[in-house]
Amino acid sequence: MTLKRPRARDLGIKIGRIKTGRYNAITDVAGVRVGHTTLIEGAGKLIPGTGPVRTGVTAILPHGSDLFLEKVTGAVLAINGFGEVTNAEQIHEMGCIEGPIMLTNSLNVARVADAVIDWSLDRNKAMGTETWGISPCVAETNDMYLNDIRGRHVQRDHVFLAIDSAKGGPVEEGAVGGGTGMICYDFKGGIGTASRKLPDKLGGYTVGILAQTNFGWRPQLMIDGVPIGRELEQYKPVRRKGVIASPSSSLRINSATKQSPTRNVEIASSQKPLLAMTKGSRVTDSGSVIVVLATDAPCSTRILTRLARRAQNGLARTGSHTGNTSGDFVIAFSTPRRKKHFADALTYPAEQIIEQGDLINYMFWAVVEATEEAILNSLFKADTMIGRDDRIVPGLPIEETVALMNQYGRKQVHLP
Amino acid sequence: MTLKRPRARDLGIKIGRIKTGRYNAITDVAGVRVGHTTLIEGAGKLIPGTGPVRTGVTAILPHGSDLFLEKVTGAVLAINGFGEVTNAEQIHEMGCIEGPIMLTNSLNVARVADAVIDWSLDRNKAMGTETWGISPCVAETNDMYLNDIRGRHVQRDHVFLAIDSAKGGPVEEGAVGGGTGMICYDFKGGIGTASRKLPDKLGGYTVGILAQTNFGWRPQLMIDGVPIGRELEQYKPVRRKGVIASPSSSLRINSATKQSPTRNVEIASSQKPLLAMTKGSRVTDSGSVIVVLATDAPCSTRILTRLARRAQNGLARTGSHTGNTSGDFVIAFSTPRRKKHFADALTYPAEQIIEQGDLINYMFWAVVEATEEAILNSLFKADTMIGRDDRIVPGLPIEETVALMNQYGRKQVHLP
Amino acid sequence: MTLKRPRARDLGIKIGRIKTGRYNAITDVAGVRVGHTTLIEGAGKLIPGTGPVRTGVTAILPHGSDLFLEKVTGAVLAINGFGEVTNAEQIHEMGCIEGPIMLTNSLNVARVADAVIDWSLDRNKAMGTETWGISPCVAETNDMYLNDIRGRHVQRDHVFLAIDSAKGGPVEEGAVGGGTGMICYDFKGGIGTASRKLPDKLGGYTVGILAQTNFGWRPQLMIDGVPIGRELEQYKPVRRKGVIASPSSSLRINSATKQSPTRNVEIASSQKPLLAMTKGSRVTDSGSVIVVLATDAPCSTRILTRLARRAQNGLARTGSHTGNTSGDFVIAFSTPRRKKHFADALTYPAEQIIEQGDLINYMFWAVVEATEEAILNSLFKADTMIGRDDRIVPGLPIEETVALMNQYGRKQVHLP
Amino acid sequence: MTLKRPRARDLGIKIGRIKTGRYNAITDVAGVRVGHTTLIEGAGKLIPGTGPVRTGVTAILPHGSDLFLEKVTGAVLAINGFGEVTNAEQIHEMGCIEGPIMLTNSLNVARVADAVIDWSLDRNKAMGTETWGISPCVAETNDMYLNDIRGRHVQRDHVFLAIDSAKGGPVEEGAVGGGTGMICYDFKGGIGTASRKLPDKLGGYTVGILAQTNFGWRPQLMIDGVPIGRELEQYKPVRRKGVIASPSSSLRINSATKQSPTRNVEIASSQKPLLAMTKGSRVTDSGSVIVVLATDAPCSTRILTRLARRAQNGLARTGSHTGNTSGDFVIAFSTPRRKKHFADALTYPAEQIIEQGDLINYMFWAVVEATEEAILNSLFKADTMIGRDDRIVPGLPIEETVALMNQYGRKQVHLP
Repeated sequence: MTLKRPRARDLGIKIGRIKTGRYNAITDVAGVRVGHTTLIEGAGKLIPGTGPVRTGVTAILPHGSDLFLEKVTGAVLAINGFGEVTNAEQIHEMGCIEGPIMLTNSLNVARVADAVIDWSLDRNKAMGTETWGISPCVAETNDMYLNDIRGRHVQRDHVFLAIDSAKGGPVEEGAVGGGTGMICYDFKGGIGTASRKLPDKLGGYTVGILAQTNFGWRPQLMIDGVPIGRELEQYKPVRRKGVIASPSSSLRINSATKQSPTRNVEIASSQKPLLAMTKGSRVTDSGSVIVVLATDAPCSTRILTRLARRAQNGLARTGSHTGNTSGDFVIAFSTPRRKKHFADALTYPAEQIIEQGDLINYMFWAVVEATEEAILNSLFKADTMIGRDDRIVPGLPIEETVALMNQYGRKQVHLP
Repeated sequence: MTLKRPRARDLGIKIGRIKTGRYNAITDVAGVRVGHTTLIEGAGKLIPGTGPVRTGVTAILPHGSDLFLEKVTGAVLAINGFGEVTNAEQIHEMGCIEGPIMLTNSLNVARVADAVIDWSLDRNKAMGTETWGISPCVAETNDMYLNDIRGRHVQRDHVFLAIDSAKGGPVEEGAVGGGTGMICYDFKGGIGTASRKLPDKLGGYTVGILAQTNFGWRPQLMIDGVPIGRELEQYKPVRRKGVIASPSSSLRINSATKQSPTRNVEIASSQKPLLAMTKGSRVTDSGSVIVVLATDAPCSTRILTRLARRAQNGLARTGSHTGNTSGDFVIAFSTPRRKKHFADALTYPAEQIIEQGDLINYMFWAVVEATEEAILNSLFKADTMIGRDDRIVPGLPIEETVALMNQYGRKQVHLP
Repeated sequence: MTLKRPRARDLGIKIGRIKTGRYNAITDVAGVRVGHTTLIEGAGKLIPGTGPVRTGVTAILPHGSDLFLEKVTGAVLAINGFGEVTNAEQIHEMGCIEGPIMLTNSLNVARVADAVIDWSLDRNKAMGTETWGISPCVAETNDMYLNDIRGRHVQRDHVFLAIDSAKGGPVEEGAVGGGTGMICYDFKGGIGTASRKLPDKLGGYTVGILAQTNFGWRPQLMIDGVPIGRELEQYKPVRRKGVIASPSSSLRINSATKQSPTRNVEIASSQKPLLAMTKGSRVTDSGSVIVVLATDAPCSTRILTRLARRAQNGLARTGSHTGNTSGDFVIAFSTPRRKKHFADALTYPAEQIIEQGDLINYMFWAVVEATEEAILNSLFKADTMIGRDDRIVPGLPIEETVALMNQYGRKQVHLP
Repeated sequence: MTLKRPRARDLGIKIGRIKTGRYNAITDVAGVRVGHTTLIEGAGKLIPGTGPVRTGVTAILPHGSDLFLEKVTGAVLAINGFGEVTNAEQIHEMGCIEGPIMLTNSLNVARVADAVIDWSLDRNKAMGTETWGISPCVAETNDMYLNDIRGRHVQRDHVFLAIDSAKGGPVEEGAVGGGTGMICYDFKGGIGTASRKLPDKLGGYTVGILAQTNFGWRPQLMIDGVPIGRELEQYKPVRRKGVIASPSSSLRINSATKQSPTRNVEIASSQKPLLAMTKGSRVTDSGSVIVVLATDAPCSTRILTRLARRAQNGLARTGSHTGNTSGDFVIAFSTPRRKKHFADALTYPAEQIIEQGDLINYMFWAVVEATEEAILNSLFKADTMIGRDDRIVPGLPIEETVALMNQYGRKQVHLP
């Protein structure tokens, strides 16, 4: 079901001016791999520690070789640091990322990190005996509105599966992987991706973005400048038959899901914005977003940090004011700049883009455009989901959105 | 002439949801004062060091008492640090601002800083004899496209005038003060301001913004989500008779200006974006913006930095991708949190807002909204200007803009 | 055995001028509690994943109430960020610490963090159901030279034990808790603590330091300015009978230890500094140190960061050059400044010290002095240890050290 | 007179293990030039704005070519940001330094910056007409205890002289240039320099340090670990005949100095530490230090920042606790890493040292050792000075210091 929903570009929504890469995905950066493990199981009332389960984990691998032995130049930027990105301090200091980048829910960070250590120790017998061990990079957003987050359901095998199944090419979007239970602008969010490819005369470099979206208050949502959220402020999915009766199920690992759409379900709208303590709650302005930024342009950590800074512009263009409890981070890496764990030379020729004129500005534009589009894709691709306590989070309604885009002068937008 | 142009809100363009303060200006924060000195003199070919002059200086005073003896809690945030804000390191470390905040052009920073020292030494005989001296806070954007920037025409007396004439109430906007020769989205920019007042139940706090705008590539300009810049990409002011023949003159200090609109003038459009080395050039995507953020909510430096971070969202909503050479800074202060230069106690009760729920989020929204509106006001209020080498920078065309807003579904927008 | 070794002050080594607190320990800051779980088990050849075990975990609790509901104002400072302190980004942004601060070895960070989540979920049923969950703060140094670090032997129960047994009063030092397998200046290191109490006229505030030491190259070691390390560069513990035959055993949890001192043991000296990849290795200049800084002076995050910065001065005075792979961090907190998780007001009176004159400078001195002394205490209190592969790390030889101190003009230093 | 005083190494005081460069000066880094302008004029009672004058300016040029067109990779690090380093934000963002680095007194920063603009505009006619202008890097410490700082006596010509006279080879130390009126540990301070040259197998790189010292409370002073300051706490120069009657005069620009040593002069000792508001006062623990770090090792801004961080270790080893009002900064640059102002390529091969093993650690050691020695040289080389209001600041007494070093076990130290 998730797969049938269109991406923004399928509807004629073209963000910005630079052309996309082949898949319009982070995997357009050569070598980058993405893998998801999606956990959907159970329904009905929350039994803390048991279910229902609406969660998962996503792995982004900067390249296909050993990431510990060939670290990539990396950077972590906190737009709003109310959240966790493990290993951030080391990345700040040393400027490199030495393993898969993992996205999951807030309470599962430690378990996923430990599983990454397991995975790494398996592959490197010298780790911890002759050389130091990996410090995993795991980021999170909070899926407690739909998911039994206390259950910490992402286990070692799920992490291994996400890493080992990571591949290039098209990337699954919507309610998958780490994004399974996430909510964006009070619609169902999750994983979205997009890319931009610079003109050949500017090196033909690619910028890829993958976002795990779990933020925003509905009235703020803008799509290419159109105030969709304000127009859909009162929208409830019950108006559309059938949708809430069939949660996305194709990706569930355990099929013993029992849906109960006939119960008296709580349906999300933004009527009463609940500006309370509940981080990641659906009807709040908070939540979080993790943006992973990949490029094959040779960049230092300083330059990656500058690129990362522009992801905030892309976020802002979808309407976000970067809410207080929204842990918004960018994790950026440059694939060709690698640091060997064991080196036998004194210096190396760290190729680096020159921050002048068109090239650096196109890179910045590419980040802004791809971030905005990746977030929109996470919304367009995520279907309505029923989670714990029969809570329903509606998918962004496609028909209504297209109609509104037309109404606001975007005549080129259409149903697929 | 400048005064006749409408502000955004006069046209029915209402940014966001929170109501404005009385003047919709930074001076709505009680005690804040603003003063401008505007220098417009000469015309025609650039004679480096002589003219034409299109520049000035703006002073923002956080309160009306002695700023050195009663420093305000402050913060400086670099969105893109390609520019100068003097005293930034001390503000980072100590969290306070100890004098007027000055905005001018890039090459005049040192002279303005020295004049602030003059002004301060005059007022405080112990400074430099018994206690240390002021470290002035001066920020800049580059007006070299229209102005003879090598001339460093802002002198000691101009600085004194800006400081001493600073007052509360309505704030002059457009091509005045430090903003005199500035360019925004390839239209004439300058100074803009706006404010937001929180509901009483949230303390009734005010957030005020004043921006000196000198950034952006025309096709990027968005007004409340409408792609005005893309639609006006080919716009040239020669289509509108009379405008280019009469540069804003009412504010010029020296009236010996000789305009020569009949020469073969270079007229700005964004046809050939010149992504070159020229920082602050009109037809480039670079330039800079300085955002001054004031609030009467009691905030620590950490909280002010969080508020400042949201100014980037407001900037992004006008279309900016934060260009490479755009030195974009936020200078923020909280008026009730003062640090006395001479203290005789060990501790003080530093009242501070609680970063929870509605209050902090409304503060963030207020920053986003007021920043977006302040930038728009700088555009709406700035008239076409002819500067060095008869270069013309068109003011944002009001009629065309209103028509486009209507075309894009903003039916409430109208001519004043 | 460990308990019999003297602290620096027992030998007449008085660092600095400010008097100590009652216990000369971090627990002199009222309310602060410390707990250790020490794991010593097995001997002989390393069997990765099995043993020998020389590791543990230490918990520092900023106060005795619920730390999540009453967070303390906190700060994390990277002196050299080559290491992990989880939750650092959130502490940077929000300025508070919301749970026990845990110290352990590098590969156990994730497991300890997960156990802290377990511990917290047990105590707060709303966590993850109605409000968000804890983000644990765990720091690490690398004990792989003596310990089977791949085994990740610190389990859930060990973490609970450290937290639940935490108490005020005297603090065990040396090879205990997280410091069990650590090495400092090529001597046995571990946990050390010290405190300073300001004069009453300066508020009578206390600064407490606890350090987990695992850094330094022996020839660099200075004790109160005396080049002890250079003098003891060739020192090997075999010169002192009996010592290497009896590793500290009183604290071992599992008593099935089989020591084999008669084998051909590798004895540490600094003859061939091994400047290789091995982070945390004994005979390298790297390793790491975690400094926990507590104070009852009311400080903002900014001020705590300033205090933390001075811990580097204390470190430097023991000889460190802050080696490349040494992940040196300071985790600081102020006990009276608390942030409630659930608040019903808009502002609060955040008392704060005034950064002027004697008070702030005494605070800085206190940090420098207490950090230097805490590190020395970790050395004086840690006895020789035999670990994996029969590697021996000698305890700092007391008699030789006293003799050298006398030789270098410190006549007041004496055997206890 | 100044020239006759020995450097630390002339007395047999050898800091650390790495050998020095040829001149043991920052100029050992090939291409680096240093120039001083020293202003000593007048005596007796302070007439604010007139004199006496005890100040100056120092210029450090990273290389001999056009610094604006060939910027060097640079970094600025605030150890304690209570001071001014202009252009710091731009150096943080872009990672390069584009002009001479200037050291002067606090109130002269703006004037020196403006003179650097003058100097640069003279040399580059395109600056401000076709491309943007220089943003000068000027740092400061406060000489108001001895100097009429309100007078801002460093003029345009003095700045030009310092820059234009800059040269390689031996560097004048002590009370010269920007260091003329400075005070260090309550002794006369000023300018000091030192260098270290790595072994050939580690690339043979050089690290050079130049410090302008104006910090420290006398009892804290340590020389190679020996508590010289504590021993000389009561030392007053009147005990040594003749010294105070003959201030260093050979470098004065204006020879109309009238000394009046027979008046009732105020003589510095540290008997009553004046922990007051007076930043830079002699008898306080505050003041400031600027450390300029040069290297010919190819380093990125991130790596330079890491090197700069270790200068704090060198400072700490001389006794400093980094006082509250001490604006302690490091300005670092790497000479071979240059960024052209006008570039016609997309990327460049930014050679960079590999942060592994011996090389990076030797670099760190070199910074620690050279910083410590540069500070000591500023003390050893600066003679007693009489300044405003007949205040006397004693030079570090050589004989007493040598005797004390011997007494504390440093038998190799001797009079020259």
